Amino acid sequence: MSAQQAPAADPILLRDDRDGVVTLTLNRPARFNALSEEMLSALQTALEGIAADETVRCVVVAAAGKAFCAGHDLKQMRANPKQDYYEALFTRCSQVMQSIVNLPVPVIAQVHGMATAAGCQLVASCDLAVAAESATFAVSGINVGLFCSTPAVALSRNVSPKHAFDMLVTGRFISSAEALSFGLVSRVAPDAELDKAVAALTSDICAKSPVAIRTGKAMFSRQRSMGLEEAYAYAGNVMACNMMAEDAGEGIDAFIEKRKPKWKGR
Amino acid sequence: MSAQQAPAADPILLRDDRDGVVTLTLNRPARFNALSEEMLSALQTALEGIAADETVRCVVVAAAGKAFCAGHDLKQMRANPKQDYYEALFTRCSQVMQSIVNLPVPVIAQVHGMATAAGCQLVASCDLAVAAESATFAVSGINVGLFCSTPAVALSRNVSPKHAFDMLVTGRFISSAEALSFGLVSRVAPDAELDKAVAALTSDICAKSPVAIRTGKAMFSRQRSMGLEEAYAYAGNVMACNMMAEDAGEGIDAFIEKRKPKWKGR
Amino acid sequence: MSAQQAPAADPILLRDDRDGVVTLTLNRPARFNALSEEMLSALQTALEGIAADETVRCVVVAAAGKAFCAGHDLKQMRANPKQDYYEALFTRCSQVMQSIVNLPVPVIAQVHGMATAAGCQLVASCDLAVAAESATFAVSGINVGLFCSTPAVALSRNVSPKHAFDMLVTGRFISSAEALSFGLVSRVAPDAELDKAVAALTSDICAKSPVAIRTGKAMFSRQRSMGLEEAYAYAGNVMACNMMAEDAGEGIDAFIEKRKPKWKGR
Repeated sequence: MSAQQAPAADPILLRDDRDGVVTLTLNRPARFNALSEEMLSALQTALEGIAADETVRCVVVAAAGKAFCAGHDLKQMRANPKQDYYEALFTRCSQVMQSIVNLPVPVIAQVHGMATAAGCQLVASCDLAVAAESATFAVSGINVGLFCSTPAVALSRNVSPKHAFDMLVTGRFISSAEALSFGLVSRVAPDAELDKAVAALTSDICAKSPVAIRTGKAMFSRQRSMGLEEAYAYAGNVMACNMMAEDAGEGIDAFIEKRKPKWKGR
Repeated sequence: MSAQQAPAADPILLRDDRDGVVTLTLNRPARFNALSEEMLSALQTALEGIAADETVRCVVVAAAGKAFCAGHDLKQMRANPKQDYYEALFTRCSQVMQSIVNLPVPVIAQVHGMATAAGCQLVASCDLAVAAESATFAVSGINVGLFCSTPAVALSRNVSPKHAFDMLVTGRFISSAEALSFGLVSRVAPDAELDKAVAALTSDICAKSPVAIRTGKAMFSRQRSMGLEEAYAYAGNVMACNMMAEDAGEGIDAFIEKRKPKWKGR
Repeated sequence: MSAQQAPAADPILLRDDRDGVVTLTLNRPARFNALSEEMLSALQTALEGIAADETVRCVVVAAAGKAFCAGHDLKQMRANPKQDYYEALFTRCSQVMQSIVNLPVPVIAQVHGMATAAGCQLVASCDLAVAAESATFAVSGINVGLFCSTPAVALSRNVSPKHAFDMLVTGRFISSAEALSFGLVSRVAPDAELDKAVAALTSDICAKSPVAIRTGKAMFSRQRSMGLEEAYAYAGNVMACNMMAEDAGEGIDAFIEKRKPKWKGR
């Protein structure tokens, strides 16, 4: 590679837009895509842009190189040994994770290689996750004397407490099959078919009504923290509004007339 | 079948009472037992009757025809395109689901064929569910532009969020084996043995002390929404009252004396 | 066995301390280690001692004889037929269970044979559980007319509601494989290798930083009852404090320098 082609200025986060699917690719493969301050900022900025863009249908978070994401950038953390710095860093990271949860469209983790510590948290924070068969997952901060406390927040909202705590205190790796059975990922694909599996999922989502998908994304996480009665009152209202949207009428008519629906677009 | 025997006036909900087991059978097979206004009213009325009847030991919700239940009646919904109508409809449906949760005795879904959308919600809302091996489950409103928001409330209280959300945004069918591993159903039986498997479960429940079963049904769902300390305070009090009931004394004496207990009845 | 060797004064709870691992062994094998008043008091006293002892790294709850634990002592309960007595008994038992949850170090259930009723609750209340392949689990109070209400509190915080309720109303036994897939235990080992599997887990935990393990144990259960935003604020603060501890600096330095970390001790 000549100097002119040098990737010195390669952005640490790549963005690819295709037919409403935004693919964000963590692009710092030499550092296993560690979530440095810069990476977190790039993710936050990208997510805020997506949140404001009504043409986006769904988001894929993928990664360049051998690993999905190795979590925080330990060298950078160690270079700033101040409580204030760490508080700010974890706040920033938690913001990124919550921005994924609060994004108006579904976010899919496309996982190959290792997803460790905050990298595993990133998988847990996405709405959906498709893992390559050989992908592995760990919350391994405990190995360096740092319990994965913020990752535990996301992990324990996906995985039963005994399985989550076993991972957290031992730092052990689990396989994609275990991740599927624990509920950390929603699908597993052979390594060679990971792209295809993600494409199948995004094209499936893009074939649905945009308003219905956005409605569902917003209501799903909100209702989880409510009591049953409150959740039903909220969900019933959301669903009545969804029924008043053009797409629901068109969708039901198409179903009754046994034809394909034509969505309004957004 | 002669005109005199014509099933024109067949009720949309059948009720069979046998030895304390009430079987409610959704009986609108030509419409895949859709939860029309009439079906929801019939269910609500039946559940209210059962709630007031102390001779009932448990309830089975079964279905006639090829499918368990295809969810809301889309034609009826489409014929009433008003926000108020939909709000009232979903309120009514949510009431039925919560009446199952709040019923004083266990409710078992007996599932064959498809259980989709609010039909899947019905399965999720029951305390127990026995599925035929070939039964399939989906929250498929998304295919007609209507995200299954109220079904999501029940589904996400049974199934881990990634599996639930994958089902909700894709509308894909899962098998009875997946439903068992996700926690949507509690048992799976070969198709030809579904009746037998449900009968085994109901007769097992009927062999227990009525007061203990009713105590447990009421406390189980209530304590789930509490913090650990509050839940223990509540459960400890409930269990002390249970111990003061004649049946617990008789049950323990019988256990110590290695004989069968004789329950008081109710 | 001669009179001099008679185990008449054998304590009902054995304590073994080895390299920071405390093993508490339920030692009333003739009564299947029932949780009598005396056993609960012995456990409570032991747990309080451990809570105050900073040299302890983790705790194993094991059992002597054929069974892990058969739950409450039914004969003793039956001999005291008063509401006040039962309230006090369940309060005491709930205190033991919550003392495990609130202990500053991880607690591992080492399960062989049967774990029934409050014995199953004990397994559910531990942070981790390693089961022998032939171990079985039930919440079987329902068979004596007493719904396992307090065990249900712990069980339903580990196991999906349909699986938990099925166990509770039928009293049926599940295998160690089911217990693993339901999330009631975190590991299963061949019967002959149970000791070895528990030793591997405790030595894994003891190889980690004491401050990080204690940090994690405390934060994990606390954050579970919080909403997402509150949980992240809390976890971020906890993790920043953890980063300021000597061990995290040493752990990260060791990782960067590719050497083994030397923990401060506690």
